[in-house]
Amino acid sequence: MLRLPALLLLLSLGSVCCPPGVLSGLPLGSRRGPPGRAQPPRAALYQTRYFPQKIDHFGFDQDLTFQQRYLVADQHWRKNNGSILFYTGNEGDITWFCNNTDSKHLNYLTSEQALADFAILIQHLKETIPGALNAPVIAIGGSYGGMLAAWFRMKYPHVVVGALAASAPIWQFEDLVPCGTFYTIVTNDFKKSGQRCSESILNSWGAINRVSSTDEGLKWLSSAFHLCSPLKSKQDVAVLKAWLSETWVNLAMVNYPYKADFLQPLPAWPIQVVCKFLKNPKLPDKLLLQNVFQAANVYYNYSGAASCLNTSQSATRNLGLMGWYYQACTEMVMPMCTDGVNDMFEPRKWNFHVFSEECFKLWKVKPRPSWIPSVYGGKNISSHSNIIFSNGGLDPWSGGGVTRNITDSLTAIVIPEGAHHLDLRASNPSDPKSVLQARALEVQYMKQWIEKYRHKH
Amino acid sequence: MLRLPALLLLLSLGSVCCPPGVLSGLPLGSRRGPPGRAQPPRAALYQTRYFPQKIDHFGFDQDLTFQQRYLVADQHWRKNNGSILFYTGNEGDITWFCNNTDSKHLNYLTSEQALADFAILIQHLKETIPGALNAPVIAIGGSYGGMLAAWFRMKYPHVVVGALAASAPIWQFEDLVPCGTFYTIVTNDFKKSGQRCSESILNSWGAINRVSSTDEGLKWLSSAFHLCSPLKSKQDVAVLKAWLSETWVNLAMVNYPYKADFLQPLPAWPIQVVCKFLKNPKLPDKLLLQNVFQAANVYYNYSGAASCLNTSQSATRNLGLMGWYYQACTEMVMPMCTDGVNDMFEPRKWNFHVFSEECFKLWKVKPRPSWIPSVYGGKNISSHSNIIFSNGGLDPWSGGGVTRNITDSLTAIVIPEGAHHLDLRASNPSDPKSVLQARALEVQYMKQWIEKYRHKH
Repeated sequence: MLRLPALLLLLSLGSVCCPPGVLSGLPLGSRRGPPGRAQPPRAALYQTRYFPQKIDHFGFDQDLTFQQRYLVADQHWRKNNGSILFYTGNEGDITWFCNNTDSKHLNYLTSEQALADFAILIQHLKETIPGALNAPVIAIGGSYGGMLAAWFRMKYPHVVVGALAASAPIWQFEDLVPCGTFYTIVTNDFKKSGQRCSESILNSWGAINRVSSTDEGLKWLSSAFHLCSPLKSKQDVAVLKAWLSETWVNLAMVNYPYKADFLQPLPAWPIQVVCKFLKNPKLPDKLLLQNVFQAANVYYNYSGAASCLNTSQSATRNLGLMGWYYQACTEMVMPMCTDGVNDMFEPRKWNFHVFSEECFKLWKVKPRPSWIPSVYGGKNISSHSNIIFSNGGLDPWSGGGVTRNITDSLTAIVIPEGAHHLDLRASNPSDPKSVLQARALEVQYMKQWIEKYRHKH
Repeated sequence: MLRLPALLLLLSLGSVCCPPGVLSGLPLGSRRGPPGRAQPPRAALYQTRYFPQKIDHFGFDQDLTFQQRYLVADQHWRKNNGSILFYTGNEGDITWFCNNTDSKHLNYLTSEQALADFAILIQHLKETIPGALNAPVIAIGGSYGGMLAAWFRMKYPHVVVGALAASAPIWQFEDLVPCGTFYTIVTNDFKKSGQRCSESILNSWGAINRVSSTDEGLKWLSSAFHLCSPLKSKQDVAVLKAWLSETWVNLAMVNYPYKADFLQPLPAWPIQVVCKFLKNPKLPDKLLLQNVFQAANVYYNYSGAASCLNTSQSATRNLGLMGWYYQACTEMVMPMCTDGVNDMFEPRKWNFHVFSEECFKLWKVKPRPSWIPSVYGGKNISSHSNIIFSNGGLDPWSGGGVTRNITDSLTAIVIPEGAHHLDLRASNPSDPKSVLQARALEVQYMKQWIEKYRHKH
């Protein structure tokens, strides 16, 4: 987390129910994406507070409120002349959500409501925290929270003087970027991390298909992958493949230069470790698949504690992700596709129709794929100002991010050696130079925004 | 209506149900305000079209649509290199509304939904009208429509290159301007239009109170004012006074320099005509009130056709205004007050509590007075660009308008001799020089926006 000399750090935890910062990789059966926060807040450093927030900012029928949870870290707060960093959160307590999981309540789980929550909360805080009334506020967020940070500055420039949108794929919508970009970047990460590594994964799909075509093969696969539930049908095999795809995607997102425990406990540069098992794509099917198991095991069992692997573990339907599933089925429609040529995955086209029908079955809602570009401007955002878009070159989400300067005050930072919002993580001796430079530049921009604000007031 | 050399004029008629462009003068019992359009469109010059619009842009529970009516005037449209003027309308067909007048449907009658309607409609038009895809669009509106035009540019700068917000009281909220400003301007209009005119009106309230204190006096008043329904109670007298107050307010809004038929058929400079009857504030009560009747009769019976005057005529509960009443009770809370010292009205404080209770009785909704400043920025709008705020010096709504430049590209134009959005009306030989200059300046700004847009594309 970035720190400015005198700051009040506010972490706001989502809207209505608190969608984790995950993004859809739906076409491969995976909806799990990047978590939104670099590190869990340490209890001692943060106070937890609640604010009664309108359930619906945009209608008056519903006058109900919910208790929005937020965290305040004021140990660096300077009453006179302080600044506020407002973290546009993407995780949180889903108890309320869990108890109210029908689409009537989900109806208010939108980015627009979240931004309105932020605006009202900040106003409340400025009015109630001594010295905060005229303090400049900067929005910071990563992943979905990064999108919210950018959109917040666009729609509420009177509330925040600027925004740091880290690994925020605001262009992963409609045809703003090619649907294959995401999985191409994942593939490149594997290409760079070990000779013939991506080729091995590309070949593994055919191997799975061939081996799983007999009952004996299904049994062998279940055992070779140490699966908790043995494979019984073609559909189970599809789930296995989706689970593997998601594993490679997640590894790309958390391909950090040091040992970390984010999605899973992992070694430094985990893809390099994975690729050590994937050097020979031409092996016979079963040998290749045994290696694939070893590779996947790096992700799921680096600690050595798992007795078997659960293919529903990562594409889990746990309630913490249900909010995002709903959002992906309404506003956050992110087209993705693979072709097996530019990427190492089985070819799958983006089929909005199928996607839409699945959404309707699940939630009785119809996705509106053009809404996000309509409301937030798509690529036509040059009239806004004071947003930093930071991207990791290794992060598949950078494909839908802003990686080139749009104007003098809508600037892009690319961290070539960075995975998913590496810049927001705590500093580490193994941090590459590029992320140190990125952080320094981010602080420099923030200082400029603050100075300009103070000059005006 | 302003014309640029090559334009496509689009008139969008409101959201969901089409609130007339009227603004609340509630504290004096009046909810009638300024109509939003200068002249009814001539059938021959406009095509009427319909577009299926989402009822709720901000939620997915409701997948219903309504047919949004809009008008297209393309006689000046130039396919290559044309520009589009988008009139952010405030009147329209209320048939649908009339048949659905419960708060469940009204829930979607908000400024945010209206802006989203505009964005989606413009996108549709640009995609379907040959040559329009890359045409710059400028929003134009007056009164509530002027507020929508300004807010549209603020929230959707990717859709419109700029906005002309005529007589748009975007600051008539919370304590952004003193609550007495509106009625002080009304009073000044009367002061300027005839000696002792405002004093006569000020004294009339006491005269009414005294005369109406007896049954005989009530009868006399009913007859002197040619009322269609005789006064029977104190409450009827309160209605009479509110009706008179509203009459003076409406006259201030339509105090145009030429004969016009806007709210009512009226002579040029109608307040001067009214004030001819109000030269002696010291007359005995009944003589003063006979003069007040003559004065009001200018407004209600300039044509001579009315056989009696109806005090429910102007504060009418006709369905065309119900939409605005609802909006005034939800988002558009405009505090107003009088003191009888700086204005010529009976003193009345702004009492939000009473207002809120009335709203709850009427619609089962609670107004949110701070929402509009929270969502649209209040006075803190300097980071936006390309908005012209034009104001009439005679228009009471100018009190809540932007009358000074905020930045180089958020500019104010004041037309000292102008009433409510005189600049949007058709040109007239009696137009004061100031409105001609204002229109020229508005066109100049628009040309700059268009040039800058073309330069970029």
